[in-house]
Amino acid sequence: MTAKSTTRNRLIIAGATVGVVAAGVVGVVTVQAQDQDPATRTPVIVNAADAHLAQSTHLSIAAATRAAQTALDAAAKENQRVSVAVVDRNGNVIVTLRGDGAGPQSYDAAQQKAFTAVSWNAPTTELAERLESAPHLADIDGTLFLGGGAPVRAGNAPIAGIGVAGAPSGDLDEKFAKAGVASLGS
Amino acid sequence: MTAKSTTRNRLIIAGATVGVVAAGVVGVVTVQAQDQDPATRTPVIVNAADAHLAQSTHLSIAAATRAAQTALDAAAKENQRVSVAVVDRNGNVIVTLRGDGAGPQSYDAAQQKAFTAVSWNAPTTELAERLESAPHLADIDGTLFLGGGAPVRAGNAPIAGIGVAGAPSGDLDEKFAKAGVASLGS
Amino acid sequence: MTAKSTTRNRLIIAGATVGVVAAGVVGVVTVQAQDQDPATRTPVIVNAADAHLAQSTHLSIAAATRAAQTALDAAAKENQRVSVAVVDRNGNVIVTLRGDGAGPQSYDAAQQKAFTAVSWNAPTTELAERLESAPHLADIDGTLFLGGGAPVRAGNAPIAGIGVAGAPSGDLDEKFAKAGVASLGS
Amino acid sequence: MTAKSTTRNRLIIAGATVGVVAAGVVGVVTVQAQDQDPATRTPVIVNAADAHLAQSTHLSIAAATRAAQTALDAAAKENQRVSVAVVDRNGNVIVTLRGDGAGPQSYDAAQQKAFTAVSWNAPTTELAERLESAPHLADIDGTLFLGGGAPVRAGNAPIAGIGVAGAPSGDLDEKFAKAGVASLGS
Amino acid sequence: MTAKSTTRNRLIIAGATVGVVAAGVVGVVTVQAQDQDPATRTPVIVNAADAHLAQSTHLSIAAATRAAQTALDAAAKENQRVSVAVVDRNGNVIVTLRGDGAGPQSYDAAQQKAFTAVSWNAPTTELAERLESAPHLADIDGTLFLGGGAPVRAGNAPIAGIGVAGAPSGDLDEKFAKAGVASLGS
Amino acid sequence: MTAKSTTRNRLIIAGATVGVVAAGVVGVVTVQAQDQDPATRTPVIVNAADAHLAQSTHLSIAAATRAAQTALDAAAKENQRVSVAVVDRNGNVIVTLRGDGAGPQSYDAAQQKAFTAVSWNAPTTELAERLESAPHLADIDGTLFLGGGAPVRAGNAPIAGIGVAGAPSGDLDEKFAKAGVASLGS
Amino acid sequence: MTAKSTTRNRLIIAGATVGVVAAGVVGVVTVQAQDQDPATRTPVIVNAADAHLAQSTHLSIAAATRAAQTALDAAAKENQRVSVAVVDRNGNVIVTLRGDGAGPQSYDAAQQKAFTAVSWNAPTTELAERLESAPHLADIDGTLFLGGGAPVRAGNAPIAGIGVAGAPSGDLDEKFAKAGVASLGS
Amino acid sequence: MTAKSTTRNRLIIAGATVGVVAAGVVGVVTVQAQDQDPATRTPVIVNAADAHLAQSTHLSIAAATRAAQTALDAAAKENQRVSVAVVDRNGNVIVTLRGDGAGPQSYDAAQQKAFTAVSWNAPTTELAERLESAPHLADIDGTLFLGGGAPVRAGNAPIAGIGVAGAPSGDLDEKFAKAGVASLGS
Repeated sequence: MTAKSTTRNRLIIAGATVGVVAAGVVGVVTVQAQDQDPATRTPVIVNAADAHLAQSTHLSIAAATRAAQTALDAAAKENQRVSVAVVDRNGNVIVTLRGDGAGPQSYDAAQQKAFTAVSWNAPTTELAERLESAPHLADIDGTLFLGGGAPVRAGNAPIAGIGVAGAPSGDLDEKFAKAGVASLGS
Repeated sequence: MTAKSTTRNRLIIAGATVGVVAAGVVGVVTVQAQDQDPATRTPVIVNAADAHLAQSTHLSIAAATRAAQTALDAAAKENQRVSVAVVDRNGNVIVTLRGDGAGPQSYDAAQQKAFTAVSWNAPTTELAERLESAPHLADIDGTLFLGGGAPVRAGNAPIAGIGVAGAPSGDLDEKFAKAGVASLGS
Repeated sequence: MTAKSTTRNRLIIAGATVGVVAAGVVGVVTVQAQDQDPATRTPVIVNAADAHLAQSTHLSIAAATRAAQTALDAAAKENQRVSVAVVDRNGNVIVTLRGDGAGPQSYDAAQQKAFTAVSWNAPTTELAERLESAPHLADIDGTLFLGGGAPVRAGNAPIAGIGVAGAPSGDLDEKFAKAGVASLGS
Repeated sequence: MTAKSTTRNRLIIAGATVGVVAAGVVGVVTVQAQDQDPATRTPVIVNAADAHLAQSTHLSIAAATRAAQTALDAAAKENQRVSVAVVDRNGNVIVTLRGDGAGPQSYDAAQQKAFTAVSWNAPTTELAERLESAPHLADIDGTLFLGGGAPVRAGNAPIAGIGVAGAPSGDLDEKFAKAGVASLGS
Repeated sequence: MTAKSTTRNRLIIAGATVGVVAAGVVGVVTVQAQDQDPATRTPVIVNAADAHLAQSTHLSIAAATRAAQTALDAAAKENQRVSVAVVDRNGNVIVTLRGDGAGPQSYDAAQQKAFTAVSWNAPTTELAERLESAPHLADIDGTLFLGGGAPVRAGNAPIAGIGVAGAPSGDLDEKFAKAGVASLGS
Repeated sequence: MTAKSTTRNRLIIAGATVGVVAAGVVGVVTVQAQDQDPATRTPVIVNAADAHLAQSTHLSIAAATRAAQTALDAAAKENQRVSVAVVDRNGNVIVTLRGDGAGPQSYDAAQQKAFTAVSWNAPTTELAERLESAPHLADIDGTLFLGGGAPVRAGNAPIAGIGVAGAPSGDLDEKFAKAGVASLGS
Repeated sequence: MTAKSTTRNRLIIAGATVGVVAAGVVGVVTVQAQDQDPATRTPVIVNAADAHLAQSTHLSIAAATRAAQTALDAAAKENQRVSVAVVDRNGNVIVTLRGDGAGPQSYDAAQQKAFTAVSWNAPTTELAERLESAPHLADIDGTLFLGGGAPVRAGNAPIAGIGVAGAPSGDLDEKFAKAGVASLGS
Repeated sequence: MTAKSTTRNRLIIAGATVGVVAAGVVGVVTVQAQDQDPATRTPVIVNAADAHLAQSTHLSIAAATRAAQTALDAAAKENQRVSVAVVDRNGNVIVTLRGDGAGPQSYDAAQQKAFTAVSWNAPTTELAERLESAPHLADIDGTLFLGGGAPVRAGNAPIAGIGVAGAPSGDLDEKFAKAGVASLGS
C-alpha cells in the first residue's frame, strides 16, 4: 500500500462523511443474495486500490431538481412554456421536465443545449458565436448551438449543464436557464 | 506524494475539497477566450454551493487502461482473441480494446457485459442466474447476461465494470475480466 | 356552428377554467413576429371547428414532478437508489429524475416501465404475469415487463405512468412508484 | 376538494359531453381481467385528483384523416404525387398516407414538416425564413425547414401539424397542406 | 372499363405497357426544370430496356386507406381503441391511423404486425404458432408475433399487410385487421 | 366480380407473362403448411379486387446486379476504389457492392446518393445545384447531395437509383454510376 | 528496424504482387491535391513501421459477388425467393442482393445470419443449437440464430459469412448459403 | 491454381511469419465442439481458394493502443483533457480512451475524426478546407470535419485513423493525434 492510499484511508476514518458519502453515492450494494454461501462463490472481492481512483464532483439530484424547477418557474412567470433538462459532466441526463404546453421540439432541444453548455463550459449563446470560426462543431452528436444552455460550475469547472427550450427566442430560454443556475449559488 | 495531493488532503479535512478537486478532475476551464472583455459579457460566474454537490469515485483512465490491457494479455496467454471494455458507474464507456482477430460480435458484447456488471455490482455469470426469477431483466437496454463481465469496486460499491467477449465460453471471458479487476487491487 | 360546438362554447363561458386552460395548455401563440404586416402574409388563420376536436386529460407538470419526487423520496427512506420517470398517455416522457447513485440501467428502465404501465393501465407486476399467455407482448418497442411501473388514472382511465428502477427487486421499485401515484390522490 | 375542482366537476355534470369524452378518449379500461378477484389484488385504485389534471385539445382521428385525405386529393388534382402526415401537438404522428408514386423521401419529410409546423405554430415556409437569424434551429431533431408544413389551430393555439412532401416545390406542397387545414374549418 | 384501362390492356398485349404504366404510377417526372437548356446538360436520357424490368402489384393508396379505415371502424363498433397500419410487400408503411385513445404502444405495434403478416403471407396468430419450431424468427427486426396482422393478397401472393393493435387481445385486433382485408375483396 | 376485374383475369390468361410474373414476383406463397386442415382454419382467403390494385415497374435483381457490376468495373478501369449501391423507387436497397479498398465512408454514401437520385429523378450533381434555392433539402433523412448518384428510368419515370462513392471527386463517382445506368439501355 | 520487419520488406521486394496489392487494396492515395505546396504543408508523412502491422485475409469483392450470386441462383432453381448478404470478418457488409419477390424481412435477416456465422465460424443451424446452453448469445446485437448463415474460411479461420433469408425454412436458406460458399472452393 | 496464387503461396512459404500470422489473426477456430461426430455433420469444410482472397494491412492492437496512449500523454503534458480513438481502414473502432475530465462530447467526436481521416487519407484540418468546394461531404454519416484526426499509413495508403477531441482547438487536438501517429514510425 502506498503512502498516498494510506493517507486517504486515514482521511476517510477521520472524516467519515466524505468516505461514507462516496461509498453511498456510488451504488447499491446488493451482494447479499449471491453470497449466502461464500464458500462456493468467488470468495475474494477485490476493491480497487486508491492509487487507481479519482473523485469527481457533481450535482445532487436534489440540487438538479431545484435548478430545473427554478428555470421552469422563471419561464412560467413570463408566460413562456418550455422544457428543462439538467445534464451532468459526462453527458448523462439527470432531470427533465416537460413544461405544460411546451412544443414537442423543446424536450430534446433542452437536453442538447444542456449537453452543449457543459461540454464547453459556456452559455450556448456564447458558443454559437464560436461557430463562425469552427462551424462544424455543430456537427458533433448531441450538441445544439442555440441559446438556452448554461453551465453549472464548481471551482469554475463545469459539473452540469442546464438547458431550456420552447420560448420564442434563445435569449429568453437562456435567461431561464441562468435562473436555474443561480438558484444553486446559495 | 506530490504537493498537489497534499493540498488536496488538507482540503478534505477542512471540508472544502470539493471545489479544488473539481477544478482538477472535472474538466477543462476554457473561459479565457470568451472573457477577454468581461465588461461586455455576463460578469457573474456562479459556482454551485457545496450544499448542492456530491462526490463520486471512479477509475482514472490510467487504471482503466491498465485493467483492460491486463485482461487482454490474460486472454492472449491462452491464445484467445477477445475484445475488452471498461465502463464507469454511469454507463459511460471509458476504454475499449478490440483484440487482434477478435470476432466482430465481441466489441459491442464486451461493452454490454461491462455495463451489466457495473449496473448490478456482480459478475455477469452470477447475474445470468438471476434471470431465472426475473427473465425480463435481460430486456433492459444495454445489458447482456452472458459471462464475461465483472465489477470494479471501491468500498464494496461498484465504480466500474470490465467486460470481455470473444472466447469460446463466457467462463473464459470472465476469467480474463477478473484478471483485469485484480490488477487494480494493488 | 353545430349544436355540439354551441354546447361546448357555453361550457367554456360558464366554466372558463377549462376553456382557458385548454387554449393555454396547448401551445404558445407566437404569431406576432411574422404577422407584423398582415397584408403581405397569409391573411386567413383557420381555426379548426369544434366538431373536429377532442379533449384529453393529462397530468400537469407540477403534479408529475410531485409524483416523481414522492417516489424518489420513498426510495430514499429505504436507502434505495433509483431513477424515476413519468410518461403521459401518449408515451411522451414528462419527468425524469436520476437518483443519486442509481445504477446506469435505471434511467431507461424507469421510462420503459412507466410506458408499459400506461399502455395497459395496470402495474407492471400484473402485466408481467400476462406474458404467460402472450409472451411476445414483451417484444413491443419501449416496453419493459418488470415490476416498478404503475398507472395514474383519471376516471379509471390511464392518463400517465410512473416508473421506478434501481432497487434490488421489482416489488420494491413498484412500491415506490405507487407511492408516487398515491400522492396525486389528494 | 378545492374550489377549482368543484367547478370543473360541475361543468362535467352540466356538459357531460366534455367529461365523458375526456374519460372515453383517454384510454381503454381493461381492468376487468385482473380484477376478477379484487380481494387478492391491490384493492385501491387511486384516481388523480382534479387539482393535478389539465385538459388539452386535439384533433379526432376522423378529423385528422379528413385533413390528410383532403391534402392528398388536392395534390392529385394537380397531378402531384405526395405523401401526407398529421402530427399532434406533442409530436406524435396521427396519420400518414404515402401517395401513389410519391418519392421515397416524401414519407419522412412529410412527418418532419408537420412536426416543424406544430412546434412553432406557423407554416414551414415562414419558419424557413426565420433561419436567417437562427440557422441552428434546423439542427433540432425531427424538424425540417422546407415549405409544406402547416399548423392546425384551435383558439389560435397549435393543436396539430399537417405536412406534405413530394411535389416539385415546397410552395406546392404547402398549398396542399393548407387545403388540408382548411377542410377542418367547417 | 375506362378508356385508360383499355389502352393499358392493349399495351400489355403489345408488350409495351411497361413504360407507359410506369410513367403513370411510378413517380413524378420533374425533368423540365433541369432540361431547359438540353445542349448544356447531359443530353442522353437512357431508359432501361424492357428485358431488365419487372412488374409488381400493390395496393393503391385509396385502397389502403379504405382498408385501414374499415379496420378502425370495426374496432370502434366494439368500443375498442386501436391503431391501424398498412404496409406494402417491401415493408414500406403506406397508411397509419392512430385511433382516438389508443395506447401509445399501439402505433408501432400495428406497423410491426402488418410487416410480419406480409413477410410470411399469413395472419400473425398463425405465425405466432410457428415460433414453437423456430423461436428466433421473432428476433428479426421489424417483426412482432402477436395476433393482429393479416396479409392482403393478389393471386394468393402477399401484396400488403394490415396490422391492428390496442385491443385487449390479439384475437380482437386480428378480427379488425381481417375486416380491413375483407373490404378489399369487392 | 366487376367487368374490370374480369377483363384483367382474361388478360392474365391471354398474356400469362404479365399475370404470372406479377404473382410470381410478389412473394412466396407458403400457405400449404397452415392450410392442411382448411375446416379448422380461416376458410376464406380474400384476394384484393383489381380495382384496388396498381402496378409498378422495377428493375429485376439481375438487372440491378448488372448495373452495379458495370459501375464497379468502370471504376476499376480507372483505378478507383468505390462502393456501389442500387436502390428502388421506394428507397429499398436492392444491391450493394463494397469495392476492394474502398474507404469506409463509401458504403453508406453510395446508398444515400442512389436514394437521392431516385427521389428527385436526376443525377445528384444536378440536384446539388438545386440546393442554392432550397438548401434544407439536404436535411431530409437518407439524402446526400454529392455527385455520384444517377436515376434509372423507365418511360422517363424513375424506377431506381445507382450510387457510387469513394473516388476523389463526385464527378468521377457519377461517371461510374452513369456507366451502370447505360448498361441497362440495351 | 527489427528482424521481423526486415523479413517482410524482403518479401515485398521479392513478391511485389502482394506488397503492391496490399498497398493498392487498402485505399486510394489522394494526397496530390493537398500537397501542391509541400513547403507550407506538414512535410513529413510517417508510415507505420512494420513491427506495428498485421495482415489479414479477406474475400475480394469479385469472390464475394460470385458467392452471393451463386447462392441466389441456387435458390432460384428451387423457386425460392431470397435475399443474400456477404459480411467480412469484421462484420462489415460487402455484398447484398435483394432477390426478386423476396419478403421484406429477408434483407436484414440475411445480413444478420452472415454476421452470426462469421462471428462464431459455424453455420447458423449449428449455432442455434448452442443456444440451449447459452440462450442469451442471441441478445448480442447484430446476430440472428436461424439457419441460413455459413462461414467462409481460409486456413480454417473465418474470413467472411454468407447469409440467405426468405425461404420457408432455415434449412433451405442454409443450403443456398452453402452453395455460395462452395463456389469459392475452386 | 493461377500464377498469382502460386506466387502468394511461395511468399508464405518463404516468409512464414506473415502467412501464419494472417491465418492466426483472422479468427478463432472453434470447430472442435461441433465436429466431434463428423459423420453426422456437414463433413466437408471448404476453404476458399487463394484466387478469391486478398490481403490487407492493419495495425495490431498493441500498436493502436500505443498510438492512443501516446496521444493521450501528449495532451496531458499540455494539461489538456481529451478523448482518443483509433479506427481501422474499414471504419471499425479499435481503441478508445476517454481521458480524465474530458468533455462528454469528446468521446464520439474522437471516433468521428479518426473515421474521417482514414476515409480520405488526410488530416482533418486539411479535409475541412476541402469542404469549400464540396460542403456536403460533411453530411456523410460518421464524419466530422474538425481538426484532430490524422491518418496512419503503410506504403502511403491509409490503414487507420487516430482522432483526438476535447482540447480548446482542433489544431491542438490534431497535434496530439499526430504525436500518436509518430509513435508508430519506429
